[in-house]
Amino acid sequence: MEEVDHLAHERSKTQFDVAAMKIVWAGSKHEFEISDRVSRLVASDPVFRKDNRAVLSRKELFKNTLRKTAHAWKRINELRLTEEEAWELRFYIDEPAFTDLHWGMFIPSIKGLGTEEQLQKWLPLANTMRIIGCYAQTELGHGSNVQGLETTATFDPKTDEFILHSPTLTSSKWWPGGLGKVSTHAVVYARLITDGQDHGVNGFIVQLRSLDDHSPLPGITIGDVGMKFGNGAYNSMDNGVLQFDHVRIPRDQMLMRVSQVTREGKYLRSDVPRQLVYGTMVFVRQYIVFNASYALSRAVCIATRYSAVRRQFGSQDGGIETQVIDYKTQQNRLFPLLASAYAFRFVSEWLKWLYTDVTQRLQANDFSTLPEAHACTAGLKSLTTTATADGIEECRKLCGGHGYLCSSGLPELFAVYIPACTYEGDNIVLLLQLARFLMKTVSQLGSGKKPIGAISYMGQVEHLMQCRCSVQSVEDWLKPSIVLEAFQARAARMSVTCAENLSKFSSIEEGFMELSADLVEAAIAHCQLIVVSKFIEKLQQDIPGKGVKEQLEVLCNIYALSLLHKHQGDFLATGCITPEQASLVNAQLRSLYSQVRPNAIALVDAFNYTDHFLGSVLGRYDGNVYPKLYEEAWKDPLNDSVVPDGYHEYIRPILKQQLRMARL
Amino acid sequence: MEEVDHLAHERSKTQFDVAAMKIVWAGSKHEFEISDRVSRLVASDPVFRKDNRAVLSRKELFKNTLRKTAHAWKRINELRLTEEEAWELRFYIDEPAFTDLHWGMFIPSIKGLGTEEQLQKWLPLANTMRIIGCYAQTELGHGSNVQGLETTATFDPKTDEFILHSPTLTSSKWWPGGLGKVSTHAVVYARLITDGQDHGVNGFIVQLRSLDDHSPLPGITIGDVGMKFGNGAYNSMDNGVLQFDHVRIPRDQMLMRVSQVTREGKYLRSDVPRQLVYGTMVFVRQYIVFNASYALSRAVCIATRYSAVRRQFGSQDGGIETQVIDYKTQQNRLFPLLASAYAFRFVSEWLKWLYTDVTQRLQANDFSTLPEAHACTAGLKSLTTTATADGIEECRKLCGGHGYLCSSGLPELFAVYIPACTYEGDNIVLLLQLARFLMKTVSQLGSGKKPIGAISYMGQVEHLMQCRCSVQSVEDWLKPSIVLEAFQARAARMSVTCAENLSKFSSIEEGFMELSADLVEAAIAHCQLIVVSKFIEKLQQDIPGKGVKEQLEVLCNIYALSLLHKHQGDFLATGCITPEQASLVNAQLRSLYSQVRPNAIALVDAFNYTDHFLGSVLGRYDGNVYPKLYEEAWKDPLNDSVVPDGYHEYIRPILKQQLRMARL
Repeated sequence: MEEVDHLAHERSKTQFDVAAMKIVWAGSKHEFEISDRVSRLVASDPVFRKDNRAVLSRKELFKNTLRKTAHAWKRINELRLTEEEAWELRFYIDEPAFTDLHWGMFIPSIKGLGTEEQLQKWLPLANTMRIIGCYAQTELGHGSNVQGLETTATFDPKTDEFILHSPTLTSSKWWPGGLGKVSTHAVVYARLITDGQDHGVNGFIVQLRSLDDHSPLPGITIGDVGMKFGNGAYNSMDNGVLQFDHVRIPRDQMLMRVSQVTREGKYLRSDVPRQLVYGTMVFVRQYIVFNASYALSRAVCIATRYSAVRRQFGSQDGGIETQVIDYKTQQNRLFPLLASAYAFRFVSEWLKWLYTDVTQRLQANDFSTLPEAHACTAGLKSLTTTATADGIEECRKLCGGHGYLCSSGLPELFAVYIPACTYEGDNIVLLLQLARFLMKTVSQLGSGKKPIGAISYMGQVEHLMQCRCSVQSVEDWLKPSIVLEAFQARAARMSVTCAENLSKFSSIEEGFMELSADLVEAAIAHCQLIVVSKFIEKLQQDIPGKGVKEQLEVLCNIYALSLLHKHQGDFLATGCITPEQASLVNAQLRSLYSQVRPNAIALVDAFNYTDHFLGSVLGRYDGNVYPKLYEEAWKDPLNDSVVPDGYHEYIRPILKQQLRMARL
Repeated sequence: MEEVDHLAHERSKTQFDVAAMKIVWAGSKHEFEISDRVSRLVASDPVFRKDNRAVLSRKELFKNTLRKTAHAWKRINELRLTEEEAWELRFYIDEPAFTDLHWGMFIPSIKGLGTEEQLQKWLPLANTMRIIGCYAQTELGHGSNVQGLETTATFDPKTDEFILHSPTLTSSKWWPGGLGKVSTHAVVYARLITDGQDHGVNGFIVQLRSLDDHSPLPGITIGDVGMKFGNGAYNSMDNGVLQFDHVRIPRDQMLMRVSQVTREGKYLRSDVPRQLVYGTMVFVRQYIVFNASYALSRAVCIATRYSAVRRQFGSQDGGIETQVIDYKTQQNRLFPLLASAYAFRFVSEWLKWLYTDVTQRLQANDFSTLPEAHACTAGLKSLTTTATADGIEECRKLCGGHGYLCSSGLPELFAVYIPACTYEGDNIVLLLQLARFLMKTVSQLGSGKKPIGAISYMGQVEHLMQCRCSVQSVEDWLKPSIVLEAFQARAARMSVTCAENLSKFSSIEEGFMELSADLVEAAIAHCQLIVVSKFIEKLQQDIPGKGVKEQLEVLCNIYALSLLHKHQGDFLATGCITPEQASLVNAQLRSLYSQVRPNAIALVDAFNYTDHFLGSVLGRYDGNVYPKLYEEAWKDPLNDSVVPDGYHEYIRPILKQQLRMARL
């Protein structure tokens, strides 16, 4: 690919079939081929360049994003890309834009909440982008508590219309992406009021802007919420603020699949199960987990390659210094993140299956697996996004000082990723939801109701409460059954302890409030167990390619054992392992790191990321870091002139002791 | 101060004398009065406004920083500020600038490394800013490993000059603040070469730019390294790149206090102890710890006030919702950070004393305490900066979605702070240095050499290896002696275990490499013990003011017990506490959180930060968050026009299906 390859020596040490691993990572040969082709298409198109994002002003950045989205849509049509390919194209363009919400939230919510007629009317418009939509739920005063939204939609039977209104400042819609400057329409969530009665929050399709000249329609105040964290990053998105002043829409723009308002203003509920909403949440959250594996793997790819390029200390007599990737402190921080990237990839694959399974059951009116699937997806969204956000920043630190430069790509990767910890459910709120489900499961254990799905291990609670870990040697920690049982026992014991402590409170709600920090920890233990168990299950499948399975086994062990070490307090406090067994974990980890070391570069090559997608001088495929860092520096606007703007007004008067008279 | 005070109700609940606490926080009445006066002076001066930093382009931002520094210097002279007041003024302007390096590194290194004559010559110029200097040590290829620097300074006896040269790309100076665009001079670190012999790294005063027109002198290539993490943040600093092409300087610009080169080119070492260098490091690092307490307390102040303003969930029948600060999950994350801010303040106070003590001893040729002071300061720099960086990001998350807006102040606070984890010693490298000292101390225990200073607890190693924690009830965890012993036992046992494991390796260096992750953990345990013990010592002093000491006791307990919980794996694995005792920690923590809760706002008010310094809409003193957030949004450049720039070129053609013909 490139002329020099400073990492060729590293690549020559690889002990497995990288091409085969690429397919494992992508999910299938088909998925690999699409992502490979589309990512190269994006990388080779100059319109999609992104190396200048950090120095663009907000307006320049935003206009350039509009250009990219238009060009992307043009290419999608010219090349007659399939829906899957179009999705990949937008993904590899790697720039948050209003189209994310149009395709990812606006259209899906119409599909999910609209009647047949509504689908007939709106989908053709949206699918051809003759209208552009966003998803206006969150308000200035309410995020997590959706039931507390204040925007009202009051039915006026005289005109057969709803009147949308923002009664307070805090009822302003706030945050919706694509709202601020672009969307012509929105699915707006508002309290439905008929005849003075509040029926709670419902969705409405509302036109926001004129299709002729893009000006906001009468009664609508709309703008951008302002700069967000980071250079470039999410500032390419027009997260918006919106206020309604008695805006009227026809009655048939209420999304009426689940509940209806008749011409007479009567409120009705259809027999469509409300649980459908949870099905959508499972879909969105499994996609977030999938994205977590991408974001983390990008950061890990950058940090791993640079750690092999960077040398520091350890030279004998002025000879060549040690690659920093050879330091155990570096391995100890980096390799668990590499393992996590793979772990999250596989658990997201499983969640995709889970979503399909739940959907098929819902269509057959089987709701039995939904609560567990919903709770588990919520927990995994929380676990993986928190670990990914922290992991990206850790990768930045692993790159030393140079990781602080925008040209390393890591600052932007962090800034653009962290909203995932908050949107679609605040991570702590989600863990508490999962904890409620865990407590309910524990409380029903005596009733003979068998726990199903990812929590079925609770069925063996009696065994798990008293089992003893049989590890006696370093090698014992490589046995999947032993590792799995330790994680199961820890999760079960933490849940049971919480349930026991809860029962000491006079009210369950008071107990829940008081013990919430413990409940969060129990939920995390449950989630980590799921990720470990799905990684282990993946390895029970047939995986072709020389050495591929062996590498994945090493990574699976690193993932599990590094968690075991990090959370050894849980395992020890619940008596799941002994201090001696805990110290054997450490010894085994060191040995595993040595096994990964020669394959580290190949394991990140297997992600198959183009240099365009990585967007990092430190993470370049060819390892040609220093000359490129140097080259990048001179592109900064401050280097346009040798003597900086401001020298004559501010620096010279200081040096010449002429400040007293200066006008500043 | 303000007309509305949405937090008045919170303030009315305070159980202690806030004015007295302000003095405790500031260190003394004198220090409080200066910081109070100077911070108000800065806040009231429109030149120092900083609320627009996030939207300024790099060039605008930089020019504005030049303006601020010139104005500050003008004010310092007009008002005849003392050195202490001038320092505070620059601190409260709160914008990284070349002056930080001029006053903080250039002048101190001349003072530390220059001869009497050199001081006579250079200090008057620098102190009046007739020259502006920076500190050019780090290179593109070498940061942590200072001995690996590649820049050369070769003595030419013919002309009595040194020739400074950058022999490779990686030898380019890279990162020095103030270098890129402003400094006229630098202290440059280069390998001293005389007569073909390399004498290692020495400092040289080098003029970089013409004092007439600011252009770089012949043979000097100089520029800015480019954009760094975040909006505003450190981009106001001209971190620079510098290359020398055989640049000649007079021999007397080598800093010659520690070693000299004679007219004949002979290399000599003076009898000035080289340990002086370590004294300087202790100074710089104790100042970093001091700054950590400031940065963390700012973030905590913002998150605490906003947590009292923000309400979510918990309303009964549409009534008022629960303040998020009342949720135990919020308290469990926020209050340990509040306690950490105070803990770091007090440990930095102690480090300041330690530095003074070490300096006095050095002057009396007593080097006995230096190694311990050096190791301990290195460790505390690492501990406090890592905790502060993580803590700022945690505070941002505690503010939910709105924390992601630049107007919350938290993104910039994070971006501007995180370099502290890397500069002046990478945090992991520093912990490994401390670990070496710990291992040395353990190895000498048998020799009868008594450990002194913060590590003197190791003198009781026999007791600490076998003592048992006597906690039997929740209240027992409030006893300082019990808490202290638990932390001492954990630290001692972790160090001793490391030392035992090290002894199993054939070479100590091999063992150090292999066990470095464990050594880092032992070093952290040692540092946490120091912070806990200095907090406890502080409380043994007389502290005036109603309820002040009681509040600090609660915070001290929260600091210690939240660490105990977070690291319970260490305490359990080393047998310092039992699982039952660990669970009592949790129960006590919940009770402590309830005691802090009514005082939380007052405890952050005690930092005495102006709204200007905080720079956060969420952290406003008056709690008037939502109207101000709304107001701020409209200031974004994207809101200059209702229809965004780019509509006609990119949005309209999509909507009108005219993309095929469009030129993008």
